[in-house]
Amino acid sequence: MTAILLPEPESAVVARRDAIVKDLVAILGHASVIGDEDGRRAYETDAFTAYRCMPLAVVLPDSTDGVAQVLAYCHRNGIKVIPRGAGTSLCGGALPAEDAIVIGVSRMNKVLEVDTSARSARVETGITNLAISAAVGPAGFFYAPDPSSQLACTLAGNIAMNSGGAHCLKYGVTTNNVLGVKMVMIDGTVMEIGGAHLDADGYDILALIIGSEGQLGIVTEATVRILPLGEGARPMLIGFESTAKASICVSRIIASGIVPVAIEFMDRPAIEVCEAFAKAGYPLDVDALLIVEVEGSEEEIADRLGYIAGIAQELGPSSLVISADDAQSAKIWKGRKSAFGAIGRKADYLCMDGTIPLSQLTYVLEEISNICKRYGLGVANVFHAGDGNLHPLIMYDANDARQAERAEQAGADVLRLCVAAGGCLTGEHGVGIEKRDLMRVQFSDVDLAQQMRIKTLFDPQWLLNPAKVFPLDGRPVPAARASDPAIAAE
Amino acid sequence: MTAILLPEPESAVVARRDAIVKDLVAILGHASVIGDEDGRRAYETDAFTAYRCMPLAVVLPDSTDGVAQVLAYCHRNGIKVIPRGAGTSLCGGALPAEDAIVIGVSRMNKVLEVDTSARSARVETGITNLAISAAVGPAGFFYAPDPSSQLACTLAGNIAMNSGGAHCLKYGVTTNNVLGVKMVMIDGTVMEIGGAHLDADGYDILALIIGSEGQLGIVTEATVRILPLGEGARPMLIGFESTAKASICVSRIIASGIVPVAIEFMDRPAIEVCEAFAKAGYPLDVDALLIVEVEGSEEEIADRLGYIAGIAQELGPSSLVISADDAQSAKIWKGRKSAFGAIGRKADYLCMDGTIPLSQLTYVLEEISNICKRYGLGVANVFHAGDGNLHPLIMYDANDARQAERAEQAGADVLRLCVAAGGCLTGEHGVGIEKRDLMRVQFSDVDLAQQMRIKTLFDPQWLLNPAKVFPLDGRPVPAARASDPAIAAE
Repeated sequence: MTAILLPEPESAVVARRDAIVKDLVAILGHASVIGDEDGRRAYETDAFTAYRCMPLAVVLPDSTDGVAQVLAYCHRNGIKVIPRGAGTSLCGGALPAEDAIVIGVSRMNKVLEVDTSARSARVETGITNLAISAAVGPAGFFYAPDPSSQLACTLAGNIAMNSGGAHCLKYGVTTNNVLGVKMVMIDGTVMEIGGAHLDADGYDILALIIGSEGQLGIVTEATVRILPLGEGARPMLIGFESTAKASICVSRIIASGIVPVAIEFMDRPAIEVCEAFAKAGYPLDVDALLIVEVEGSEEEIADRLGYIAGIAQELGPSSLVISADDAQSAKIWKGRKSAFGAIGRKADYLCMDGTIPLSQLTYVLEEISNICKRYGLGVANVFHAGDGNLHPLIMYDANDARQAERAEQAGADVLRLCVAAGGCLTGEHGVGIEKRDLMRVQFSDVDLAQQMRIKTLFDPQWLLNPAKVFPLDGRPVPAARASDPAIAAE
Repeated sequence: MTAILLPEPESAVVARRDAIVKDLVAILGHASVIGDEDGRRAYETDAFTAYRCMPLAVVLPDSTDGVAQVLAYCHRNGIKVIPRGAGTSLCGGALPAEDAIVIGVSRMNKVLEVDTSARSARVETGITNLAISAAVGPAGFFYAPDPSSQLACTLAGNIAMNSGGAHCLKYGVTTNNVLGVKMVMIDGTVMEIGGAHLDADGYDILALIIGSEGQLGIVTEATVRILPLGEGARPMLIGFESTAKASICVSRIIASGIVPVAIEFMDRPAIEVCEAFAKAGYPLDVDALLIVEVEGSEEEIADRLGYIAGIAQELGPSSLVISADDAQSAKIWKGRKSAFGAIGRKADYLCMDGTIPLSQLTYVLEEISNICKRYGLGVANVFHAGDGNLHPLIMYDANDARQAERAEQAGADVLRLCVAAGGCLTGEHGVGIEKRDLMRVQFSDVDLAQQMRIKTLFDPQWLLNPAKVFPLDGRPVPAARASDPAIAAE
């Protein structure tokens, strides 16, 4: 589709960029604007590294007012904006565009207020996920959603993608743990949405904002729910000879009414790689491994693990190990949380993020393995089984163009399978550019048109993260489409 | 404001109504259309009985397709629509308008599918709240949100108002328990939103729909989360000499990390009336009573009640009683759940529904009593303390116009107080017509404008429940305003 674009002469591009950088410096000062090539290169991609694109410029405001001034400027001048947290998006959600500026919130990372009796904390969204728990930990609290990238990822990104994590089975994902936000709209006006109270009157715009992938505005502050730290927690490892038995075990644990903090699932390829990396004591002679963690007092932990062990025993597990101490627990979680990295050292992979009704788990896992066999590719499954959020890692060789293409096709088939099974395309990673064309698999034209109308309502010129989430064709704003950066970026 | 309306001659009104009824009969058949005066009178008000208005006609479709055909007809002919569940709204959410038809979903009350391993049930929204639990009870499950009107109120109404209930402290309100909906839009197109899976890609339109008070579309089917029935549950009664001590007790229970199923709060006037009605064994020598219910196995119940008793003891409670058996538990809850009715037998009252950060409870309760003293009115407080959802019942004599006016002023002051304390105007009852003018207290012009843009996006002619939620002045659609039914209704 690049053919329809008349490329600007390089000189014109440079002149335009210089003018914009000059304006941005006038607004924010030199210290907050990155215009040089080396500086911009650090922002040319996110964790979806298959795609890269150099932005016009990068700004790092240190206040909501700074964000508002820059957005108002972009609004007046029709300049596209890519909001960015820490750039850990796995779906290209923070991928720049060559005719867009990046607005990073990483400098806005202060804790503004902690109220333990209201069990809430107000923070700037540039704060990292883990830093929130670190800030309220001394008072005996923590922030629940725990993406594997929590050491690096920002709350801003968590809000944009409605991020989850291994422990969201019990505590919910981001949208269940954010009470209110301050959001700057594209014209620079600031909205206050929700707050430290139950529910909200009027329409629930807060939930609309969370998961909207930076397309409706830039969230600069948030009031999050903080929870009291549990007395203790302990994981157990349950190995099965078949993924089918493990799936049934998960369904029975959930249906029993017990709510573990986490039920993680690993298949053989994932177990082997993670065990080699973390020496976590995972059994190597099983096809499927469950990590089930419960929390509470020593007695409650013993009760619940015993009850879950009973459910597992009925299915004849190949192995059943309860963590003996905190050191072993830490190793068990290290293995799980480093799974993507560990597998990444062995092969390139595409990480899928479909969700399914739990009742479909056995069927879907079998089909995933059949799909990858058809494409001659390996697959490792390591995911949040308790809430049906799958993460098949389709392994391929990125240096082999044909393999890379087959991997993308296999990934698309896997996601179509999830939708066909009554699930959806993405549980916690977002749509970004990776899955935008698959949105048609999930949504009818009526559904998509309504969502795009909402995008247009908040951002009439489609300046905010424009190339993401929706298929590039059939968009309501031709202007935003003809010059669509992502088309050039691909 | 009725002055600005040129009243149609009665004959023209009748002719128009007859024509519309004829069209509706052609669409749905005689059995589903109510056009005669006696039939329509049954629909002229809801549980907010201060206001009444006869609709043009009432239709009771038995299918999504029927709803779609009627909405498409209304869309083509610019006829206003009042969606209705069971008409139990406390804020006039289902109040008809004289130039609108009522679409009731009460005939659409089937359970379509139950999937225990996915812990979900798909139902038509005309089903009553309690009927969902009744349908899944034999399988060992229940539907969690439990408004006091649950015997009568429909899921459709619960979704429109994002209803809560005494047991939502642990299980969340409607928006936390609905996974997906089928919604008919004003032009008759049908949207499928969400489903029996975690999260959703694209924007979170589901949460936007829940709590939108029938203004964005008519929800005809829903997939709800069902939860396994607990092993058991037991309430305890904790009486205090002051509301301050009771408030502190609530804060400490919450901050301790224990999550009771319910923490209900009653002040002296509420205790006296409810005890007289239900003989629940409430202590009559205390200023504040907490009903704290926990659930689990016998051991867990004993543990948790003991732990909570310990927290209470530190504050020197006047009385502390643990329910001895199911019969006593039933009486304790009967007293609480019949509170509104019991107080209603003693005096007319306005039921407020503000929510506040729990840390503000003591201060807000004192201020509420001061406000009502200033207006020379009695007030009873009986509410969901655990999640900060207040229900002050302001008592007055409806036959005394000046008292009625003072009661409305006091109610407005109470809600302003809630907002000033960092809370909001309504926790679970909705805005309806009762609180529409107070929306300005909560929201800036920017916030309101954005919400009304969303209303216009879904319903360009403002035909769906038009007079509700937003202040009548400053609306974006003059056409919808000039002929605003609620203006005539007042």
